[in-house]
Amino acid sequence: MAQKWVYSFGNGHAEGKAEMRELLGGKGANLAEMSNLGLAVPPGFTISTDVCAHYTSNQNQYPKALEEQVNYALKQIEKDIGKNFGDPKNPLLVSVRSGARASMPGMMDTVLNLGLNDQTVKGLAQVSGDERFAYDSYRRFIQMYGDVVLGVEHHLFEDILADYKDDNDLALDTELEAKDWKEISLKFSSKVQAELGNPFPQDPLDQLWGAINAVFGSWMNNRAHIYRKLHDIPESWGTAVNIQSMVFGNMGDTSATGVCFTRNPSTGENCFYGEYLVNAQGEDVVAGIRTPQPLTLFEKTTNDTDLPSMEENMPDLFGELLTIRGKLEQHYKDMQDMEFTIEDGKLWMLQTRNGKRTGKAALRIAVEMAEEGLISKEDAINRIEPEALDQLLHPTLDPDATRDLLGKGLPASPGAASGKIVFSAEEAEEMVLKGNKVILVRVETSPEDIGGMHAADGILTTRGGMTSHAAVVARGMGRPCVAGAGQMKVDYKSATLSCGGKTVVAGDVITIDGSRGEIMLGKVKTIQPELTGDFGTLMDWVDQIRSLKVRTNAETPEDAQTAIKFGAEGIGLSRTEHMFFDPERIIHIREMILSSNIDERRQALNKLLPYQRKDFISLFQIMKGLPVTIRLLDPPLHEFLPVKNDEIEEVAKAANIKAEIIRERAHALQETNPMLGLRGCRLGIVHPEIYEMQCRAIFEACAEVAKDSAQTVTPEVMIPLVGSKKEYDILHDMVDRIASEVSIEKKVELNYITGTMIELPRACLLAGQIAERAEFFSFGTNDLTQTTFGLSRDDSGSFLTHYQDQNIYEKDPFVSIDIEGVGELIEMAAERGRKRRPDIKLGICGEHGGDPASVAFCEKIGLDYVSCSPYRVPIARLAAAQAVLRTRTLVED
Amino acid sequence: MAQKWVYSFGNGHAEGKAEMRELLGGKGANLAEMSNLGLAVPPGFTISTDVCAHYTSNQNQYPKALEEQVNYALKQIEKDIGKNFGDPKNPLLVSVRSGARASMPGMMDTVLNLGLNDQTVKGLAQVSGDERFAYDSYRRFIQMYGDVVLGVEHHLFEDILADYKDDNDLALDTELEAKDWKEISLKFSSKVQAELGNPFPQDPLDQLWGAINAVFGSWMNNRAHIYRKLHDIPESWGTAVNIQSMVFGNMGDTSATGVCFTRNPSTGENCFYGEYLVNAQGEDVVAGIRTPQPLTLFEKTTNDTDLPSMEENMPDLFGELLTIRGKLEQHYKDMQDMEFTIEDGKLWMLQTRNGKRTGKAALRIAVEMAEEGLISKEDAINRIEPEALDQLLHPTLDPDATRDLLGKGLPASPGAASGKIVFSAEEAEEMVLKGNKVILVRVETSPEDIGGMHAADGILTTRGGMTSHAAVVARGMGRPCVAGAGQMKVDYKSATLSCGGKTVVAGDVITIDGSRGEIMLGKVKTIQPELTGDFGTLMDWVDQIRSLKVRTNAETPEDAQTAIKFGAEGIGLSRTEHMFFDPERIIHIREMILSSNIDERRQALNKLLPYQRKDFISLFQIMKGLPVTIRLLDPPLHEFLPVKNDEIEEVAKAANIKAEIIRERAHALQETNPMLGLRGCRLGIVHPEIYEMQCRAIFEACAEVAKDSAQTVTPEVMIPLVGSKKEYDILHDMVDRIASEVSIEKKVELNYITGTMIELPRACLLAGQIAERAEFFSFGTNDLTQTTFGLSRDDSGSFLTHYQDQNIYEKDPFVSIDIEGVGELIEMAAERGRKRRPDIKLGICGEHGGDPASVAFCEKIGLDYVSCSPYRVPIARLAAAQAVLRTRTLVED
Repeated sequence: MAQKWVYSFGNGHAEGKAEMRELLGGKGANLAEMSNLGLAVPPGFTISTDVCAHYTSNQNQYPKALEEQVNYALKQIEKDIGKNFGDPKNPLLVSVRSGARASMPGMMDTVLNLGLNDQTVKGLAQVSGDERFAYDSYRRFIQMYGDVVLGVEHHLFEDILADYKDDNDLALDTELEAKDWKEISLKFSSKVQAELGNPFPQDPLDQLWGAINAVFGSWMNNRAHIYRKLHDIPESWGTAVNIQSMVFGNMGDTSATGVCFTRNPSTGENCFYGEYLVNAQGEDVVAGIRTPQPLTLFEKTTNDTDLPSMEENMPDLFGELLTIRGKLEQHYKDMQDMEFTIEDGKLWMLQTRNGKRTGKAALRIAVEMAEEGLISKEDAINRIEPEALDQLLHPTLDPDATRDLLGKGLPASPGAASGKIVFSAEEAEEMVLKGNKVILVRVETSPEDIGGMHAADGILTTRGGMTSHAAVVARGMGRPCVAGAGQMKVDYKSATLSCGGKTVVAGDVITIDGSRGEIMLGKVKTIQPELTGDFGTLMDWVDQIRSLKVRTNAETPEDAQTAIKFGAEGIGLSRTEHMFFDPERIIHIREMILSSNIDERRQALNKLLPYQRKDFISLFQIMKGLPVTIRLLDPPLHEFLPVKNDEIEEVAKAANIKAEIIRERAHALQETNPMLGLRGCRLGIVHPEIYEMQCRAIFEACAEVAKDSAQTVTPEVMIPLVGSKKEYDILHDMVDRIASEVSIEKKVELNYITGTMIELPRACLLAGQIAERAEFFSFGTNDLTQTTFGLSRDDSGSFLTHYQDQNIYEKDPFVSIDIEGVGELIEMAAERGRKRRPDIKLGICGEHGGDPASVAFCEKIGLDYVSCSPYRVPIARLAAAQAVLRTRTLVED
Repeated sequence: MAQKWVYSFGNGHAEGKAEMRELLGGKGANLAEMSNLGLAVPPGFTISTDVCAHYTSNQNQYPKALEEQVNYALKQIEKDIGKNFGDPKNPLLVSVRSGARASMPGMMDTVLNLGLNDQTVKGLAQVSGDERFAYDSYRRFIQMYGDVVLGVEHHLFEDILADYKDDNDLALDTELEAKDWKEISLKFSSKVQAELGNPFPQDPLDQLWGAINAVFGSWMNNRAHIYRKLHDIPESWGTAVNIQSMVFGNMGDTSATGVCFTRNPSTGENCFYGEYLVNAQGEDVVAGIRTPQPLTLFEKTTNDTDLPSMEENMPDLFGELLTIRGKLEQHYKDMQDMEFTIEDGKLWMLQTRNGKRTGKAALRIAVEMAEEGLISKEDAINRIEPEALDQLLHPTLDPDATRDLLGKGLPASPGAASGKIVFSAEEAEEMVLKGNKVILVRVETSPEDIGGMHAADGILTTRGGMTSHAAVVARGMGRPCVAGAGQMKVDYKSATLSCGGKTVVAGDVITIDGSRGEIMLGKVKTIQPELTGDFGTLMDWVDQIRSLKVRTNAETPEDAQTAIKFGAEGIGLSRTEHMFFDPERIIHIREMILSSNIDERRQALNKLLPYQRKDFISLFQIMKGLPVTIRLLDPPLHEFLPVKNDEIEEVAKAANIKAEIIRERAHALQETNPMLGLRGCRLGIVHPEIYEMQCRAIFEACAEVAKDSAQTVTPEVMIPLVGSKKEYDILHDMVDRIASEVSIEKKVELNYITGTMIELPRACLLAGQIAERAEFFSFGTNDLTQTTFGLSRDDSGSFLTHYQDQNIYEKDPFVSIDIEGVGELIEMAAERGRKRRPDIKLGICGEHGGDPASVAFCEKIGLDYVSCSPYRVPIARLAAAQAVLRTRTLVED
């Protein structure tokens, strides 16, 4: 027996089913599934992907048995629908569509109304009782078929139509009557003949095979080829072809067409939701020429419209649709997005698929379906895209508001905000004090701008990537941020921001959308987030399942509190240097840097001690016994020195030294590659007095909180940028020494552990040695990514776009852990560390801690926790639970 | 039977031998060996290192049997030498010396003349017939013992002596007579009593145990402890103590003392060489109060001196010594450094050890000994310290010349040079054109300085490490260089160089010693190198043994020729960017960078093409078919733009654009961490036209050379800084495309291979994937070290000294491959690369290619070649052979 190449569907059953996606493509499998469910699907058949493989590997020859099988399937359609292909009285018309396993732009998409010719068009006119409709359909068919199958350029048809309108003083398509379309379809046919030297094919079977060839041919065309290469889709997959009988919703008042959702896709509310139009085609709903009518009475009331609902207008058909709604949702166990057409009183289902929804709706639907018992709690958890939670936690732009786009950048920190633009951090603070909302616009930000960034409602930079200073700090603060808007130009002198000929000046209002990376002129309406009960319910379920702990990166009390609210289970990274930028404090750190000897340096550090101690006390109090990882000073010292002349003068005055000395010192501290210079534990080795002060502040804070509140305080002292055992051991000794001094002085027992940030490839390689003393490893994936790739995140903006264009990195390695490279190093370090010290605590504290794919990786290699910025804590919790569920599925499989 | 703690020697036999170094320490084992050889060694005994272990782990208690064994051994000495310990008539005097397995500063060293007291000193006077000698010895003993054993400070004795001289109007020690020394020894004794409250010990046995205690005690003192910690010497090793009878060379004209070498230690000539003094002690030879006399007639003649040689003066004893010379060299199979004393006509051997020698002597001795059949060729190869070859290849400072030290820096490139100082590269070139020799002094150098560096005889920088730009380039050119002289200050404005209060100005002459990192005022005499036949002979042997190929890093014809002369087997790294800095060319590369569109960029590149092609033609011609690895452009583009204002103006004029545009472009290209920015293959991805031009130049050069000379040309095109497979594949495709274009145009078949520089941790991890296309890997160990450690070599100067002080890195990782970290990555990459492509070519081309330990590592992991700067080629060849020999030994063991 010949191989089966063709699979029929419709008439309440099908030869295929949903699971046969590989053979039938997504569309074919789905049409088969609906048929099997007993729904009225316009009958048709699918030519399998095997045929495509045969076709491409045999010089565009089809398997022998194909023609026969196609003819047989065509007969089935004719029988089911009661129309015949090429019948001049009551012609069967079909659509021909491609349908690959994955949706694939660049391929031939659709030919409608195939089967029309100079004869059958008359039959269609008669059967439909609408000559205008018939000839309009015919001219559309000629154009579509001429363009995609025969290769006659689109604009040639457009020109004919335009000329015809001009000649006849017609403006809109709706003004054209049957005779006009008839004449135009003749002109279209002639054009095809003129271009190709052959008449437009009149035999419906010729038309059909022409379309089938075009679909299979388009699988190998250049655009599809490139797309597959970029997305690693194997050429061998091939595409299927779907041939399906046409049904028409525009055959009078007993016909209609509509789209509907089983639940409300924007709120998630469990009520039937949709639109329909009487005597209309699918295109009409989309084109917006007529206003669609509500599906239900409820919607009619809610939307306060006079248009009659389908529920009132066609109660029986509505009832039928309502049953289908229930059936499909029960079957697919998810909210469905359906398309239907009513042809002369008969309801046909054209499509069902899982519906797109807002983050809010996704949450509500998942939780309610689980509560209804339709899906399990685990399914509910899996249904929420972790990134979608961002929408719930940040203000978003009103989707209905108009946007006057000024430029684009990277979506660096989610949320939307409007405000007057300012070009410096100081100005931001001043303007906010006067009651303004501002957007801080900078070429790039530096630690000195922290105050202004906090004051601003949003941040925009024209340089830097997703993990630039601006992006990282903004995410930490929960401020919307668009970073690296490279086509925009900031001119500080004239205080202007310009892009593509448009210029705004300081004080003008702009809006930024940090979730999409867009910058808009003026104020765009935003929607404030609200955390619903559903959120809490889902998070409870999530926490029952996940095994990874989720901590937060925080150093200010505000951030720590936000994180606790979002469910953080400790602080995984407290960057002590951020605490130094307060104007009261930075003066002392500068004094320290400018000191010419160690005694002066110690004096300056002694002034900083009380501030640091206070910071730690408040963090310990907020975290109520949860672990708090404190990283000792990490950045190079020159980051604390002023750069601008007036600032230098100011500091010189305050510190009572010559400006020249400050300049000299700043110059001496300058580095070619500061990222790879005197920072991290190298500072601790060269200037032990700095780390000594910080440790003293930590332990004195512990002592005080422990005494006052009788609470356990468990600081984890973290030594950054370690690359060798000796480096680590020297500083671990120092931590122990200071702890024991404070313990004796304050007469308290201190509970603490000491460990290191693993952020250099060498630290990963030597992790076994380092773990001899280190009690925890926290992977600093930002720096580890930079050193492993030899890629500075601050400088990569200039070429990463080229890299994205050529798809060199699958994902931005600063956003999602590069599993092949950086991931292997992390896994190696975890393994070697655990081998040497089985109970070593392992976590990550880079920006990746809040990225779902990275969280899944951490779960897979068995880390103890991830740490991320406060606003990403819920995302990480969800991702951690999903990772567990994924492992379970793998085990069960 | 009690454990043996004490080992006697002397009198023609010994209880120990050379192999018992662990138990007897180096000195003890050596004295035993000489005794066993039947040489007259003053009798003595060694207390073993086991006693030290017992002593330190049992609260300074000795094993029970020790005292008895010491007494017994002492009796042996008395018997052998015919003198008795404490005998007031003919007293036995002994020396007490420590002797650990490895020489160890910080420990008690020596006490001489032990056994003297108020009685025995008289006996010594009588026996020696020299009262002055006896009391001089006694006062020395009191001072030495008082200081090192009893802890009476040295200066107290010096004060007494100085006061005595003042009181008696005496200036020189030689003016003091017997009565003076007698009185002084009394004063010394009293001082000890006054300080300690006890008299100076008179019982020789008390003296002996005091000295033994002091040696063992010093094993645990603080300095020794720190030294051991820094050098990883286990505390458990312990030290031995050697007690040996004194012999005196100052007992009249039949006594003498001397030092000699079995061959000439500065030339290596096979002739007996040494000095002696009649009626003198060892100290006198060293102190230089009397002029030593030549040992042989030959030396007497050569040195044109009237002083009688030992050969004439004491022919019998000289004959005896000559026999010993032969015996010891035959026994130790190496040139010996011997000490002897003749006491009243009897020759005593006090010491023999492998003699220190110059590089030149080492070479000659090794080659001649192998030719004499004394040692094997393999032994000869192992005898040469690879670094010592440097002395042979570069000018060195005359060791006899006086040096007026101005400052110190890092020994960045070997050799010595004198010249007038200049502070800019242009000035260097101008001055040299006028016939001057110059030393170029810069804070640091940049690629723009290449011309001046070439012109200068030596280079001095005050910033940067062993692999800074200055150091790398200087080594490549064979120019002496002192880098990172941090205490020196360059002031460009006043054109001065100052250090520690001394200042020199432009035009002053200084001398630098790049082998020692020293900077001297004025001209110091240098010795020019000469390559002897021995060098060629050794290198022949070396080449028969080594398996690693040795290539060179070179881009200029001069360097390539030098390298060929030194035996290079190809070019492992040709840095094409160095070719761009010629004034004729840099203008075009600047034009290219300043172009606003791709057409302009291509035009500028077209102008560069002929230059590059010419460079490659000449390299191919010189290398005569040997492989030539050409690295496509690597450094960030801003390195080519001018920085100084006048230069900017000049370029603006030449390129006919506004200076402002150059500044803007330079600013736009500025990077925070250029090392991790837009460079290497990233340039090739962003601006493919640059690499296209370079490939075209390479292949057109191949075509031309192949046609003209019918010679095979085998370029290896190297893509730098690859971190992912896709990056590599895109550029490999580009190389192939250009090759095939040129092949068609020129109608020649091109033989080439394409590969990549592995210099990022991620490239090591993904080496398997990259090897799918890459035909060779060349490990760029400089950058790999920087990224693996997260350490910029340009910026590490500020803290690496602290790291060295605390011994954090065993070796400077930029000088010798960090085997634990970087080495593991290299090994991993080699393994993964070979697994995917078994015939992949593997080599290294970082600065480490010329470091012997790194070469050994490359041999161990089975690389195919190393590549290093021309002057290090012989060193690498030798190191490669030694590495093979080491492996053989390991296999045989």
